[in-house]
Amino acid sequence: MKYVGKNIPRNDGFDKATGLGQFTMDVSMPHMLYARVLRSPYAHAKVVKIDTSAAEALPGVVTVCTFENTTNKPFNTSATMVTTPRPAEPVRDQTIFTDEPKYIGDEVAAVAAETEAIAAEAIKRIKVEYEVLPAVYDPVEALKPDSPEVQPLYGNKEHHNVCGEIVRVTFCEHEPYSDEALERGFAQADVIVDADIKLPRVKQCQMEVHAAVASYKANGTLEIISTTQTPTPTKMIVAYAFDLPESKVRVRNPPYLGGGFGVRIGISGKAELLAAALSMKALRPVKIVYSREEDFIASDTRHGGYMHARLGAKKDGTFLALDTTAKLNTGAYCTFGVELLAVCGVCGTAGTYHIPYLRYMGYPVYTNQQTAGAFRGFGTPQGTAVVEACVDKLAKVLDMDPIRLRKMNTMKPDDKNFFPFSVGSVGTNECLDKAAAEIGWYEKRGKVQTGNKRRGVGIACNTHVSNAAPFCVDYNAVNMIIEQDGSLRINTAIPEIGPGSTTALIQVACDLLGVPFETTTIIFGDSAAAPFDIGSHATRTLYSVSQVMEDAAAELKADILSYAAGKDFLDTDASALTLENGIISGNGKEMTLKALAYEAHLKGKQFLVSKCKVPDNSLPFAAQAAEVEVDMELGLVKVLKIAAAHDVGKVINPRLCEGQVEGGVLQGVGWAVREEMTYEEGKGFYNTGFHKYMLPTADDHPEIISILVESNDPKGTFGMKGIGEVGCIPTLPAIFSAVEDATGVRFEEAPLTPDRVLAGLKAAGKI
Amino acid sequence: MKYVGKNIPRNDGFDKATGLGQFTMDVSMPHMLYARVLRSPYAHAKVVKIDTSAAEALPGVVTVCTFENTTNKPFNTSATMVTTPRPAEPVRDQTIFTDEPKYIGDEVAAVAAETEAIAAEAIKRIKVEYEVLPAVYDPVEALKPDSPEVQPLYGNKEHHNVCGEIVRVTFCEHEPYSDEALERGFAQADVIVDADIKLPRVKQCQMEVHAAVASYKANGTLEIISTTQTPTPTKMIVAYAFDLPESKVRVRNPPYLGGGFGVRIGISGKAELLAAALSMKALRPVKIVYSREEDFIASDTRHGGYMHARLGAKKDGTFLALDTTAKLNTGAYCTFGVELLAVCGVCGTAGTYHIPYLRYMGYPVYTNQQTAGAFRGFGTPQGTAVVEACVDKLAKVLDMDPIRLRKMNTMKPDDKNFFPFSVGSVGTNECLDKAAAEIGWYEKRGKVQTGNKRRGVGIACNTHVSNAAPFCVDYNAVNMIIEQDGSLRINTAIPEIGPGSTTALIQVACDLLGVPFETTTIIFGDSAAAPFDIGSHATRTLYSVSQVMEDAAAELKADILSYAAGKDFLDTDASALTLENGIISGNGKEMTLKALAYEAHLKGKQFLVSKCKVPDNSLPFAAQAAEVEVDMELGLVKVLKIAAAHDVGKVINPRLCEGQVEGGVLQGVGWAVREEMTYEEGKGFYNTGFHKYMLPTADDHPEIISILVESNDPKGTFGMKGIGEVGCIPTLPAIFSAVEDATGVRFEEAPLTPDRVLAGLKAAGKI
Repeated sequence: MKYVGKNIPRNDGFDKATGLGQFTMDVSMPHMLYARVLRSPYAHAKVVKIDTSAAEALPGVVTVCTFENTTNKPFNTSATMVTTPRPAEPVRDQTIFTDEPKYIGDEVAAVAAETEAIAAEAIKRIKVEYEVLPAVYDPVEALKPDSPEVQPLYGNKEHHNVCGEIVRVTFCEHEPYSDEALERGFAQADVIVDADIKLPRVKQCQMEVHAAVASYKANGTLEIISTTQTPTPTKMIVAYAFDLPESKVRVRNPPYLGGGFGVRIGISGKAELLAAALSMKALRPVKIVYSREEDFIASDTRHGGYMHARLGAKKDGTFLALDTTAKLNTGAYCTFGVELLAVCGVCGTAGTYHIPYLRYMGYPVYTNQQTAGAFRGFGTPQGTAVVEACVDKLAKVLDMDPIRLRKMNTMKPDDKNFFPFSVGSVGTNECLDKAAAEIGWYEKRGKVQTGNKRRGVGIACNTHVSNAAPFCVDYNAVNMIIEQDGSLRINTAIPEIGPGSTTALIQVACDLLGVPFETTTIIFGDSAAAPFDIGSHATRTLYSVSQVMEDAAAELKADILSYAAGKDFLDTDASALTLENGIISGNGKEMTLKALAYEAHLKGKQFLVSKCKVPDNSLPFAAQAAEVEVDMELGLVKVLKIAAAHDVGKVINPRLCEGQVEGGVLQGVGWAVREEMTYEEGKGFYNTGFHKYMLPTADDHPEIISILVESNDPKGTFGMKGIGEVGCIPTLPAIFSAVEDATGVRFEEAPLTPDRVLAGLKAAGKI
Repeated sequence: MKYVGKNIPRNDGFDKATGLGQFTMDVSMPHMLYARVLRSPYAHAKVVKIDTSAAEALPGVVTVCTFENTTNKPFNTSATMVTTPRPAEPVRDQTIFTDEPKYIGDEVAAVAAETEAIAAEAIKRIKVEYEVLPAVYDPVEALKPDSPEVQPLYGNKEHHNVCGEIVRVTFCEHEPYSDEALERGFAQADVIVDADIKLPRVKQCQMEVHAAVASYKANGTLEIISTTQTPTPTKMIVAYAFDLPESKVRVRNPPYLGGGFGVRIGISGKAELLAAALSMKALRPVKIVYSREEDFIASDTRHGGYMHARLGAKKDGTFLALDTTAKLNTGAYCTFGVELLAVCGVCGTAGTYHIPYLRYMGYPVYTNQQTAGAFRGFGTPQGTAVVEACVDKLAKVLDMDPIRLRKMNTMKPDDKNFFPFSVGSVGTNECLDKAAAEIGWYEKRGKVQTGNKRRGVGIACNTHVSNAAPFCVDYNAVNMIIEQDGSLRINTAIPEIGPGSTTALIQVACDLLGVPFETTTIIFGDSAAAPFDIGSHATRTLYSVSQVMEDAAAELKADILSYAAGKDFLDTDASALTLENGIISGNGKEMTLKALAYEAHLKGKQFLVSKCKVPDNSLPFAAQAAEVEVDMELGLVKVLKIAAAHDVGKVINPRLCEGQVEGGVLQGVGWAVREEMTYEEGKGFYNTGFHKYMLPTADDHPEIISILVESNDPKGTFGMKGIGEVGCIPTLPAIFSAVEDATGVRFEEAPLTPDRVLAGLKAAGKI
């Protein structure tokens, strides 16, 4: 392989470093209007009366949209290709504007005007009379039968305030699952431990806020340039909401976007829908750029809530049964609530270890808060947090080394698990060993700490996914074309949301086909320039698109070689020919692909393929070891080092992989010790910007050592698995474990802010 | 057929009528610079010294490009897929900037600056020292051996100032062609007549001037948004000129452009190249919009020059031999000089009539004037003008009705002709009869006219092409995709240059596949969103793209029906199923394509095809009859009426067809009686804007009756042939014939301006 495994500099680097790259906020169109949104100041209210006349009278205002003049067809802002665990129809509980806002920030009206200042002024002039209604904010409170009902129309009929359904993930290795079988599993256990953890709502904090420019034409076409990380699904949702044919809706990136982390899957933040609704009325392009405050209070967050787990094992440490419950706050609308709770169960509780009896119950709970949705890890971090806490507790009870305990229970390639795919390659134990070695586990763990600043080490391991299967149909489709000069062009609707995937994809394509990197281009992030594709999320970009490129490149190469073998050219046996670095050779003959393509075009022959594939999933495995220092007086937890060992199957571009690991770890650090969205009843979330949201700063950045383990997955192209999300998952439990090692206290609520740490230390009698 | 034949309103109509459609001049990009060009004031000179320092010192100037700092790799601005009559390599005689300007307007330098005003000021500050060199302007003068040599490096070595080669089109029906055979043909003739015509250089006068926005990135990609009518070939030319891989160059329309008429094929006017050269130095987007003056003096025109023909016939009128010579002014650079002279011979002299012995000699002649290139008709108008003059003269000599004479000699479906394709359907005689009837031929022709205002009628017939074959490889490629909701999306790189082809293509696609027009979309005019395609020219858009869609739709339909026939769906025999209006039915069962596509996507199945095709050509035939009124005192020729009968094979959209005919006729009227570019030695062309160029006004607009004849071509999809260019071709000879009928004088020079008419009438003793 000429390119795979190499540190090829990313193609988008120059654009981004110099500021020349185009982002949605840079987009300008003739006759373009600017939009602003009126949001509900109440967590739950009825709009009794809305008067937009003063806004409409303001010079420069072109269009005012409300629930009264805009389609109220209910939709769901998640992708619509979901197949597991529920059928294809998502819970459609949301409209573009509402006459019954369900959280502080809910969209009541929007204005399009000649300038942003006029739009902002017009918003102030919309008079709304509200009748305030009762609200509920906490998922456990919301599950109580007497709490206010958040979604009377769309909530679960049997389970109060459950969104969609209670998600059950169950598994018995040797018999059909039943709750009785599970209890038989627990009955065989010598030891049963349990753990709780309360997790905060945290925000993606992607660098670029939500933005969209929508341009609806009287001929019925709608073009949207936006910050979406899923151009095709976003197209489908928009087409559905407005009853437009999907062929007439085009969604594309401009082409760059400043990070995703899940917040741009489907539609979160509604920028596309709001701009489109206004453009359809104005018949002019409409641009909307969220403020950072709007991004914070009115777009999806990570699900916070309550996790409980019970783990039974034999006295030698062999895991027997695991029973986990998740009660997570999905907020006012469903979005990905159901799927995320499913992934929490499947990947967060059932993926890492071999456990013969397993049950998981996930409650996606409606509350009158802003919606939670996709965020890097998509439920797996929550599941992992509580399971790893249980494993640590078991190690303590059994007085076993936590690493030895983990290694004897990790999933093996031939194990059966909940996925309908084979487990594939498993590098978990190698990851555990390497992370342990790097952190100095055996020298540092369990050493008695005294004094004010106490150090400890901890470890956690986990899995996640390499694509979205089987939760949704993991479509990938590409066109591959050899240009007249022999250069390769790849068209895919997959976007480049930041990780450099479009560079790594070219590395893979060039090695698959045998052509030079320098003459290869990828056209990406445009739903109209490529076939159907479900976008960049679920760690799937490089893994899944590579698999369809594998098929496309094989067909393309066969076509090229067979044409080159013809009488007009090499006049030989095609099976003897190879294509390497753009040169076709074999049987002592050779010619360049450049020369062949040129001649082929003159003869009316093009080399082009369209391929579509729905690949299986492969499980990436990881272990991270943390070293922390706890200030017993101030309650400050400083994360000193994270040794992050990741089984990526095969490294495609080491630097890009490390970037994913480091970014993930830092998000994990923030989740564990700094970040938290704080709700103030009657006011909404306190955190409306970076000055009020404690994202880790440079000072909080631990030393991060990325260790890339290559297990050569049998399904992944060149043996690869995904890396995009997995880096943020084990960091929190590893830090909690290290804090326990340092202080003797296992905390059960994140983040480990000073007040929480001091209270915990005090309650445990440590200070 | 549900849509073919119907007056479906054009999809781009609303955008264009309201001003909301985006054109290149509307494009704005962050960090965009504006360009202006320094052009040579001399028809031929050597740049002795160029000093750009004062321009570079001007605040706001970012980049100055000249031949000293820009690639001087010679290129040809025509497409590079030409196969007939010469091999694939075109005459590459041009560079982006020159140190030896060859016409007044030739590009010497260009500036990119923060504003257009700064760029314009900077241009003035470039100091150039020229050494003036001898020049030649007339093609007959230029062919003389002692005239100045225009292209010493690239001109024909044997034939002074011939560009490329002398184009010979020869044909003998019953023996191999030889000049002796030709003379044997003439020797059998009872009558031989000859005719001359001198034709002016005329301008396309498309509504939108040339413009481009080029954006080169440090990662080696170049994106150009421009007014090109050939995105893919323009991409190829740009990639060639700058030595970039074709995959890294993207050329697209924004998506609209204001007319083409040939002036935007390949690169004429260099907007794309100039913007790209500046952007590659500045590493910022650069926008260039030509002024109307630059468009007039520095982009391709129609070839003017001298046509001579000699026609031999039996005394019953049967044509025996035709010998034509064209000496056309191709200007300073080749562009399409050679191909155009070939089409002049093949379509203009060899296409309309059955003539057993035929020779055509075409001289593309270099002069020190601006370049002539593609213009609606592409050489056929020049050939038709002189051949029709001969036919009229023969009718006069033989005292035959010109229509009867034509009808007995027109090409028949089984005739052999010069094309490597069968003739196909022929509607010429029906066209002649219908045009004659509409104009009142038999009542009006040959009536003695007296008084000051004299009326006459004339007629002419002709052919042209329905695509670019065999002159170049007539590529068409499309992707067709059924979206998840059953709607159809078609991707083709073909642009919409104005005729409404993208609407007609949807009509054809919907009838081919059996889906509704309302849910079908075409993505067009983007070299990166579709496979290779040679663009909108040669009357090919609807004709050729329909043929590849025919293949694509057949494969797509078969895939759909076979999937629908499966056990999960209709569970029947696929061959019993049909798809009509989006409904799949057969054997008493039915389901919608919408439902099938939705379910298919959930099962991992997409309906998508990529197809490529190089179709044969079909000959469209036409006859136009003109009625004119000549003011004997003022010399004014007023065209009263044109009856334009066109064999289009099959009408796809009557209103769009009529639009093509009417626009073509009006360009023919302008060519015949008004338009002319007048060269002033030392100053250049006088015609620098519409105030100095006599485009027909509303007052000059004759009554135009479009008669659409359907001959059902065996090759064309649904029987269609092309209509885009043919409308402008027979108008001039029909008007000349009518003027002769009115005045008794056959003029031999166009346009029939008052001074020329008066001089001619006087010379003939008519006044």
